[in-house]
Amino acid sequence: MPMGEGSHRTMEKRIAVIGSGNVATHLATAVEGVVQICSPNLANAAALAEKVGCDATNSPSDLADADIYIVAVKDDAIATVLESVPTRCHKALWMHTSGSVGKSVFDGLGYDRYGVFYPLQTFSKSVDLDMSRVPFFIEGSDKRTTDEIRQLALSVSTTVYIADSHLRQQMHVAAVFACNFSNYMYTLADDVLQRNNLPFSVMKPLLEETLRKACSNGPERSQTGPAVRGDREIIASHEAMLDGEQLDIYGTVSNAILKRYNK
Amino acid sequence: MPMGEGSHRTMEKRIAVIGSGNVATHLATAVEGVVQICSPNLANAAALAEKVGCDATNSPSDLADADIYIVAVKDDAIATVLESVPTRCHKALWMHTSGSVGKSVFDGLGYDRYGVFYPLQTFSKSVDLDMSRVPFFIEGSDKRTTDEIRQLALSVSTTVYIADSHLRQQMHVAAVFACNFSNYMYTLADDVLQRNNLPFSVMKPLLEETLRKACSNGPERSQTGPAVRGDREIIASHEAMLDGEQLDIYGTVSNAILKRYNK
Repeated sequence: MPMGEGSHRTMEKRIAVIGSGNVATHLATAVEGVVQICSPNLANAAALAEKVGCDATNSPSDLADADIYIVAVKDDAIATVLESVPTRCHKALWMHTSGSVGKSVFDGLGYDRYGVFYPLQTFSKSVDLDMSRVPFFIEGSDKRTTDEIRQLALSVSTTVYIADSHLRQQMHVAAVFACNFSNYMYTLADDVLQRNNLPFSVMKPLLEETLRKACSNGPERSQTGPAVRGDREIIASHEAMLDGEQLDIYGTVSNAILKRYNK
Repeated sequence: MPMGEGSHRTMEKRIAVIGSGNVATHLATAVEGVVQICSPNLANAAALAEKVGCDATNSPSDLADADIYIVAVKDDAIATVLESVPTRCHKALWMHTSGSVGKSVFDGLGYDRYGVFYPLQTFSKSVDLDMSRVPFFIEGSDKRTTDEIRQLALSVSTTVYIADSHLRQQMHVAAVFACNFSNYMYTLADDVLQRNNLPFSVMKPLLEETLRKACSNGPERSQTGPAVRGDREIIASHEAMLDGEQLDIYGTVSNAILKRYNK
């Protein structure tokens, strides 16, 4: 073995992942050096550990001695997890993976070095993703810690941003508009399609192309449809076909587009 | 030449395409047997004709004698085009490509056989598309005509629906929600991202996965975010960061999602 590889080996960090859900699954398989999965549900922990090739436990007191601990649990469980960690593990580097929870969740619990390791993506256990394209937003309790979290993120992804809680919160709002609300627009479309016995998949090529255009030219310049053209006749004929919530949203969004593009 | 091919040749339809824009460009290159492009802009007509390998003209009186004429021009230009066609061409099969214009636009102009040949997609001249995946919504003036338009559509795409004006209109509303409004949600996200010096492309992997999930599980079951969870605290914290149009839309859409999922 060449010298370079050998010395790289000795530098490898031992990582423990706490959690066995969607985010934990994708991170545990994406980072190098995972030695243990810890999750209250032992069957889930064992299943993920087998996939990764490491140990499993359901007890925080059995946490392995690791260099890095990644807490990938639901937002409202992070504080509880951190309170249950044995003191012997407090000197390691700790990070949670939430976009909404500040790094202040570690305050006053006896941790020296901690931070946030947040992948901007929606994960499903059963769906493989190209993690190298997933942007990570990271933050550390001090510069050295931030650098170390950044190294870990760069070992997984090509896109890593340093982001404090304020920036992550802004990004979360942006993601609600772009991801949650656009999905809701798909649902409103699906309501109309279902009424006409058409499958939602009929829209797929159109929606893929819409997203491609928005990403290549920017969404503002990619806007199409009756409202951006100022075509009030088509808007009125559509509104005549709708009622209730569909009509409310059609009117609110159309007016916003009309106002933005027809000044 | 084997007999089969020879007899197929003699059945091949001669097609003239009227228009040289985005839709005309994609259709003219996708269908077999195009002999002429006719467009008021001769340079555009010639450029497309060269691509297709056929003749070009800018004068309706020079229209080739074809079996099929495809009118792929802007909605409000269709009637004018149809009025300018020489009577000798009226016996052929005519179709326009608009989702919003009824087949009644042909009424009283002396056409025998006509219909609609509408591809549900957003086209850009410069972007190649897999036309076999684009759904076509077609309609003819009588059964034989509908069958003939259906054959033409099936020579291009695997997905062809027969759709009268009412169904096309319903589908148009659905497309406004799914395509135009989701793009506007992307724009609102981009506003937030730009204020924080982040590129819209940071959202791309998330949005691709959102669309993939919506298409595979249906959008209603794929909904994520604070509103579907009933997390009014996060919603309030987001609303505190927004104002004007962003706040209006955030509130309207969040309330609609809250109402739908938290009954």
